[in-house]
Amino acid sequence: MSKALDLYKEFAKEFNKDRRSELASQKILEIGQESLAYLSKLNRRNLQSKVTGKEYFSFKKARKLSRAVNKALFDESAGKLFNFLEALRLNSLSRLTPEEITQACYTAAISFSCVVDLEKQGDQKTPGTFFEYFVCHLVARRLGVDPQKKIEVLNLDRPFSLPTDWIFDPGAHHPKIHLPVKTSTRERVIQVWAHQRVLDGVYGVGRFMGILVCLAETKLDHQKLEVVEICLPDQWRIYQMFISKMKRIYYLDLPKPYEPLNQSFPRIQVRPFGEFFHEVETLGKDE
Amino acid sequence: MSKALDLYKEFAKEFNKDRRSELASQKILEIGQESLAYLSKLNRRNLQSKVTGKEYFSFKKARKLSRAVNKALFDESAGKLFNFLEALRLNSLSRLTPEEITQACYTAAISFSCVVDLEKQGDQKTPGTFFEYFVCHLVARRLGVDPQKKIEVLNLDRPFSLPTDWIFDPGAHHPKIHLPVKTSTRERVIQVWAHQRVLDGVYGVGRFMGILVCLAETKLDHQKLEVVEICLPDQWRIYQMFISKMKRIYYLDLPKPYEPLNQSFPRIQVRPFGEFFHEVETLGKDE
Repeated sequence: MSKALDLYKEFAKEFNKDRRSELASQKILEIGQESLAYLSKLNRRNLQSKVTGKEYFSFKKARKLSRAVNKALFDESAGKLFNFLEALRLNSLSRLTPEEITQACYTAAISFSCVVDLEKQGDQKTPGTFFEYFVCHLVARRLGVDPQKKIEVLNLDRPFSLPTDWIFDPGAHHPKIHLPVKTSTRERVIQVWAHQRVLDGVYGVGRFMGILVCLAETKLDHQKLEVVEICLPDQWRIYQMFISKMKRIYYLDLPKPYEPLNQSFPRIQVRPFGEFFHEVETLGKDE
Repeated sequence: MSKALDLYKEFAKEFNKDRRSELASQKILEIGQESLAYLSKLNRRNLQSKVTGKEYFSFKKARKLSRAVNKALFDESAGKLFNFLEALRLNSLSRLTPEEITQACYTAAISFSCVVDLEKQGDQKTPGTFFEYFVCHLVARRLGVDPQKKIEVLNLDRPFSLPTDWIFDPGAHHPKIHLPVKTSTRERVIQVWAHQRVLDGVYGVGRFMGILVCLAETKLDHQKLEVVEICLPDQWRIYQMFISKMKRIYYLDLPKPYEPLNQSFPRIQVRPFGEFFHEVETLGKDE
């Protein structure tokens, strides 16, 4: 059993106590280091990539294969992750490029997920929860604001609160952020636009910026050892036109079919996650 | 292995060829009869019902327990199902009460689901697909209209089609029906309101009546042998206020917490499924 799984429990406990503590950042670094050390001892299996311009491999342990790992984004040392967390701590992110930040985050998220794939049986929940807490911690540290998980809804008869995805309120006169986090979306993604619609209805359109953060949309066929990306760009367009407007959709491994979505009506800005850390200050200034 | 599972395959094949054939109705009756014959040989285990005014039991086979069955709605003979399908065929549904129709449908849906629970391991897909086809077939026969699964979306640049839940178009001047079907809803239910919102946006508010049909919201704790209903009435209210308006929500086993939803703003009409067959002709006449 990898020590990364114990460290994950410590991280989750700390995160639930303090969303943006330095200790939580420290635990993320340790999880990354332990996961990479564990994976470095394993063989890799090259996969048949059906995605133009991207190469993938899996880690192999006995007869088990991990999920697909994007070669270009994976950083075998934890160096980029260390630099990123350090820059986040010192509030000096400008010295890193968005690409370096994306690689650092991708490596942390995918390496721990691979450890779970190989150590556990069909456990999707642990990688999903880790990814959610991980992204939420990074955003909370970047904004210097604690997130909430529910908000009050004005109602003429009786007050009640609405459970939400992560919500960040940087204070009066600043745009607020609605931050759903998913390892992958598939057909469940309509929930994201629907939650944004509820916030638009309750607080006024534009009051909350909807920002979705995803890991990847890859699917590994374990028989054929092929990797494909499962994407629904036409449905996303319909949601963006008829349900609500998402401000940004960030990916760690940005799927090819979503790249052109920012080029025609209804524009959806799908970008690598690293860009968030550079553009967050100007985001929403046009509202 | 129960013959009901083979009959289910024959029903699915026929349904995919002709949504409202007499043969499909015949297969439903046979599945009901076979399922009830299979279950009649098994012992029953009374369950601790945490739902006031409702009693539940499970069928027991070796160490396996079926899902919870509502005593008052379960008809051990297939008599009510036979009468209902016959009345549907002869277009003489007025001789049955809504309660009898609800019992007939509940018995067909729950008995086959129990067979799957006991014969298969963790198979939620088969009962879900059966329920969807079953309800869709009944509605198609009642309306005399074939359903569609996608519709064209007007787009200024290029046409594309939207995959949908079941859609019934009874022709010009008649309200069209958007019919999602679920065995239970939980937090995924926001999809239903979101799809309705898309239809409202594309075709105009009120053009499609949203009608959700569900089996039940019961949850059986296999350790404590307790049955509870998992319901989110406050969230439904928010969806009905801020996403779209569902015209009806029909249940075979109507959950207690949803009963009062039609009594205060924003009214949501949650009713036993049997009522659909009586009120469908007047439904939408007020739009």
